[in-house]
Amino acid sequence: MTKHEQRWNELADVKDELAARNWFPGTSGNVSIKVDDEPITFFVSASGKDKTKRTSEDFLLVDGDGKPVEQTGLKASAETGIHCEVYRLTDAGCCLHVHTVDNNLISELYGDAGEITFQRQELIKAFGIWEEDGSITVPIVENYADLEKLSEAVAGVIKPDTKAVLIRNHGITVWGKNAFEAKKHLEAFEFLFSYHIKLQTLSFLSRKPKFNSYGGVKHGTIKIS
Amino acid sequence: MTKHEQRWNELADVKDELAARNWFPGTSGNVSIKVDDEPITFFVSASGKDKTKRTSEDFLLVDGDGKPVEQTGLKASAETGIHCEVYRLTDAGCCLHVHTVDNNLISELYGDAGEITFQRQELIKAFGIWEEDGSITVPIVENYADLEKLSEAVAGVIKPDTKAVLIRNHGITVWGKNAFEAKKHLEAFEFLFSYHIKLQTLSFLSRKPKFNSYGGVKHGTIKIS
Amino acid sequence: MTKHEQRWNELADVKDELAARNWFPGTSGNVSIKVDDEPITFFVSASGKDKTKRTSEDFLLVDGDGKPVEQTGLKASAETGIHCEVYRLTDAGCCLHVHTVDNNLISELYGDAGEITFQRQELIKAFGIWEEDGSITVPIVENYADLEKLSEAVAGVIKPDTKAVLIRNHGITVWGKNAFEAKKHLEAFEFLFSYHIKLQTLSFLSRKPKFNSYGGVKHGTIKIS
Amino acid sequence: MTKHEQRWNELADVKDELAARNWFPGTSGNVSIKVDDEPITFFVSASGKDKTKRTSEDFLLVDGDGKPVEQTGLKASAETGIHCEVYRLTDAGCCLHVHTVDNNLISELYGDAGEITFQRQELIKAFGIWEEDGSITVPIVENYADLEKLSEAVAGVIKPDTKAVLIRNHGITVWGKNAFEAKKHLEAFEFLFSYHIKLQTLSFLSRKPKFNSYGGVKHGTIKIS
Repeated sequence: MTKHEQRWNELADVKDELAARNWFPGTSGNVSIKVDDEPITFFVSASGKDKTKRTSEDFLLVDGDGKPVEQTGLKASAETGIHCEVYRLTDAGCCLHVHTVDNNLISELYGDAGEITFQRQELIKAFGIWEEDGSITVPIVENYADLEKLSEAVAGVIKPDTKAVLIRNHGITVWGKNAFEAKKHLEAFEFLFSYHIKLQTLSFLSRKPKFNSYGGVKHGTIKIS
Repeated sequence: MTKHEQRWNELADVKDELAARNWFPGTSGNVSIKVDDEPITFFVSASGKDKTKRTSEDFLLVDGDGKPVEQTGLKASAETGIHCEVYRLTDAGCCLHVHTVDNNLISELYGDAGEITFQRQELIKAFGIWEEDGSITVPIVENYADLEKLSEAVAGVIKPDTKAVLIRNHGITVWGKNAFEAKKHLEAFEFLFSYHIKLQTLSFLSRKPKFNSYGGVKHGTIKIS
Repeated sequence: MTKHEQRWNELADVKDELAARNWFPGTSGNVSIKVDDEPITFFVSASGKDKTKRTSEDFLLVDGDGKPVEQTGLKASAETGIHCEVYRLTDAGCCLHVHTVDNNLISELYGDAGEITFQRQELIKAFGIWEEDGSITVPIVENYADLEKLSEAVAGVIKPDTKAVLIRNHGITVWGKNAFEAKKHLEAFEFLFSYHIKLQTLSFLSRKPKFNSYGGVKHGTIKIS
Repeated sequence: MTKHEQRWNELADVKDELAARNWFPGTSGNVSIKVDDEPITFFVSASGKDKTKRTSEDFLLVDGDGKPVEQTGLKASAETGIHCEVYRLTDAGCCLHVHTVDNNLISELYGDAGEITFQRQELIKAFGIWEEDGSITVPIVENYADLEKLSEAVAGVIKPDTKAVLIRNHGITVWGKNAFEAKKHLEAFEFLFSYHIKLQTLSFLSRKPKFNSYGGVKHGTIKIS
């Protein structure tokens, strides 16, 4: 199996797993995996496919500007530019973008704050953070209709230790050094999001919503206006 | 494979996928796919089948009035008349009717308002809406026990850009130009419904329920009376 | 295939489907299917089995008093007496007992009221109720540790049109004339329970909880004391 | 099949079932099964594996101190010390550690109370408790970053009738005399946790939160500070 076939299969496998969880509702979402570094080439989702199916037209090979490397009838996902920025700015080897109800909720509830930080949760070890008070921050950007502006906004919030970016009401974009790590990061974030939403609900109900310190979230503020 | 076999298989495939999500609880729901345009014929669910099974008696071919085209011992779903109206009034090629807890909730909570509108949600791109402030409206009709009256009520709210109708406490009827698009629309609506209900819950809890402007829903008003 | 083999397979199939939904948590729950009428014999779950597995020791044949008809090393479920009462008092051909979080919640929230009634929900057509204002009532009994007393309590609330009984914090027992109908009834009830709980949550949040008239539930009263 | 192969397969089977429920998010969690008693040896999860896959490198054999018994390139899970304590202090034959949103919520909400007790729930029969007012208590310990200190904390709360320990925001560790019983206990606890959280939500909403006596939970107190 060539390196290209191997990467294709890794990407198809992780796509199948996420599709089985219904994390690509309405053909939303897209995924990519890096094949070469110099110059950068990566496989990325073709536009508008049913991600519950596995076909030879699911992905196409593009360069660091998101342009097809080979002649193809396929169109790269409209959001390929975001993947380009992730590969340009980080050492990611795989990048996943999915919509879940809970990642959309977090992106809306903490959208004005611009970020959410998790702390004192065992699951943050999934990000390689083992310190007692270690924390992980996910920046949140507005969902610009202009996809070039959106790519720039995403690029603007990626710092060396960033593992994911939320786009407001537009899901999560998460990465790792390979498909295995990208999926690990995604699962950990989704767990933290779901946990936080349920805990906040109970916190609200008990009349003591303390967004800045409670339950392992700090720096975030829900602004419902 | 004939065109009839192809359409049958497409419909059986989408039915299987929705059944796997438990979206036909208690043998509720029904699906159809258009085979010919002039005159209109379409396959529609036979009445009262267990939709988790795949059999040669799942569908029968009917005409634009919902009457069987061939001799058959099968009875078309009691709600075939609604499918007839959808094919008469739109360019739908496939029509799906399912019950989920969340689509029933939306139909009840916004039933008095008569519609719900979603805006500023990435998922509305699934409906081919790419404008920054584009929106999608789903009309809601009362659930008349008289099925002829119900079909008329559904027909009465279908406009050129309508993609789905909610019947109060009676699920969603959604369509697309083929099975792929109908499923895409259904998944996107269900995502928007689930997202909205969870967001409203948190919104209520924070004491600032703003139904007309918050979280990408406008024009809808929850009336709990 | 003999009638006995046929019934066994029908029961094994429905058990597999419910197990796939995790509706037998912690080996709870039990199922049965009638084989003969005069005298009554039925297959019933053997005690304490892992219901996610399919084996030749899952069920045993018992008579109308729940006693094994053939020599066997298997022990009938401790709650076989409840199945005996269902077959004695109704024309059921199949009887299913499962635990879900939502059926346990309904049994607790409406336990003091002793019943819950659903109305104006499309899903009640699953019970063969097609009238505009038709309704379905599920009686709720206390969960006596003495299983004989519990069987009597269940028997005491079964009326000619009863389709299911809830035992407080002890799941639902539901039946139909065969496995297909029993599963249909179960799915419909679970949908109605889940719908009602989510609707009540939103209703509470909007500060107008009207338990007797709202959202298709009447006669039930939540007493949280 | 040797005893070692048999135990390996039992452990791999239960791991597969829990992975299918997404109870190992982000490669979290770990499982073990005892092979010999004198001296104690057990198979335990190798560190950092994707638990949705089934491979020959998923587990390794360790002794009562968690040290590999055979030469191996595999590293035992960092939390093997907790499994050692469970085998040292109880008659467990299998031990499972998983993260769910609801077990993390319970661990946080009742963390200050140090325990949660369930009563008057049918599901507690899964623990072999058949008395009318029988109850089951799960101790909760803080999540020390120092894993040796954490193991000691877990060891410190295990009493003869303890079936599981919650670590704050770090999931449940649960056991049984074999894989079958360990899974049974786990499923029952998860059901009780989910049930309790939903019931508390409705209880809060009705403005009568009675944590010490309502719905089968006593001795626990939610402290949201």
